[in-house]
Amino acid sequence: MNPKPELSAALRELIARAERALGDVLPPDDQVPVDLHRAMRYAALGGGKRLRPLLTYAAGFALGHDGTDLDAPACAVELIHAYSLVHDDLPAMDDDDMRRGRPTCHIVFGEAMAILAGDALQALAFEILARGNRARGMEMLSTLGYACGAEGMAGGQALDLTATGRTLTLAELEYMHACKTGALIRAAVRLGALTAGADKPSMEALDRYASAVGLAFQVRDDILDVEGASEVLGKTAGKDAVQGKSTFPSLMGLDASRARLAELTQTALDAIESFGARGELLRELALYAAHRHH
Amino acid sequence: MNPKPELSAALRELIARAERALGDVLPPDDQVPVDLHRAMRYAALGGGKRLRPLLTYAAGFALGHDGTDLDAPACAVELIHAYSLVHDDLPAMDDDDMRRGRPTCHIVFGEAMAILAGDALQALAFEILARGNRARGMEMLSTLGYACGAEGMAGGQALDLTATGRTLTLAELEYMHACKTGALIRAAVRLGALTAGADKPSMEALDRYASAVGLAFQVRDDILDVEGASEVLGKTAGKDAVQGKSTFPSLMGLDASRARLAELTQTALDAIESFGARGELLRELALYAAHRHH
Repeated sequence: MNPKPELSAALRELIARAERALGDVLPPDDQVPVDLHRAMRYAALGGGKRLRPLLTYAAGFALGHDGTDLDAPACAVELIHAYSLVHDDLPAMDDDDMRRGRPTCHIVFGEAMAILAGDALQALAFEILARGNRARGMEMLSTLGYACGAEGMAGGQALDLTATGRTLTLAELEYMHACKTGALIRAAVRLGALTAGADKPSMEALDRYASAVGLAFQVRDDILDVEGASEVLGKTAGKDAVQGKSTFPSLMGLDASRARLAELTQTALDAIESFGARGELLRELALYAAHRHH
Repeated sequence: MNPKPELSAALRELIARAERALGDVLPPDDQVPVDLHRAMRYAALGGGKRLRPLLTYAAGFALGHDGTDLDAPACAVELIHAYSLVHDDLPAMDDDDMRRGRPTCHIVFGEAMAILAGDALQALAFEILARGNRARGMEMLSTLGYACGAEGMAGGQALDLTATGRTLTLAELEYMHACKTGALIRAAVRLGALTAGADKPSMEALDRYASAVGLAFQVRDDILDVEGASEVLGKTAGKDAVQGKSTFPSLMGLDASRARLAELTQTALDAIESFGARGELLRELALYAAHRHH
């Protein structure tokens, strides 16, 4: 086992930057409609790993870019992620009462308001990305739209839903995760790269990186679900098995899952080798995704 | 009472055009994830008035524009409308089993799939608008995002939710509707106008038109809920009163509501007078919104 990874000061500073930016773009909770705004802020500002905005910033940095124009795409991917968790936690979906050690959005604000908060977070993500003029803005918006939709995140959730209770093949499991979590992680990296004006070879290298990190993140999630204890995860552990979900450990065993994780991490690191020192944060994030304890 | 209005051949042809375009942009129902795609197509292709895409086309025509580039914004506003109905009908929201004379999406596909279908329809709306290059595309996307979000449609739904069971003032009721249905109707007109390259005076005239039509549409809805019978509406009539919702008839009476409707219709017609013959479809739609029987 690896020791518990600590994030570098650089990444911790970027988390703070992303959270400041999120606080600024979310509607104020003292303005009408107050309940909706509160639910949106509760869902988006209640902690979390902030992996997606970190990837957006790190992709920009890898290309030598650190403008404030990275903030909007960083927020956009996190708002999409936040909305997906709110809807995912609903009674009709995963029916989770706890998330990040706090009651889930629908427990606090009610189901109807949670549905609306998720819907409004999604709209906000697109809106902030469309504000002002942005080079390659249309490409960024179509990238985000595709990543969220029926061929991306929502599609992956649907596959997950219809898969519960039956055993998937490994290829089906990887495809489901490539949609469900991979699509948005790839978009996070891509939006950072587009902001930095990436050329085609850089974009392809970053896509290879993001695909590997996205899948590694999920393999790690499945391993944690088997290993983890509720108090560390802040959510119910061992739930996959209870729900009859196919996971990497259930299909290939824990040892092979760990080997696959190491392999994916190496693929990610190899893909960004050419960025040299500028790729340092991307490297750290790949290692973090693979070794995190929650 | 006005006789039942029949749509002109021109509008009926535009409905067919919108439905063909929707059929083309929606994901095919024989491709994975099949259930999600089916739920999306069921929700978006099951009839309806198609008022929003008609407004997009009609706004373009009023400015002398009839390019195929109107199809994507026309579809985008209708996809947003379709998603909002799916989520609005959910048990946690309005809990409606019937819509347009058919079982609602969650009755057919289950709650979880209906939530995801709504989510994916919203993403698709933004994605198709972001595809390709589009003059003033970023402005169109931010317009749509704002119209759907916490300051627009989702915000209006939240206000509606928190208002149920208490009596609103007329100003509160109008504000709620300006968000809940008005915002998307204004966006529909605005997207058509932006596609046609509208200048500022035209845009302002069309905004005045759209605001009046949006509110008129809702006043008519409230009147229909009192007057209508279930078999004509294809949904349960008299539901507003049962749910304790404030409506124009409940706040100002049926006669004053009809007078307000006539006044709003006149405001809409006055706003577009300068467009002359090119504004004919906008005029027809204003009259249709005010006099429709379902």
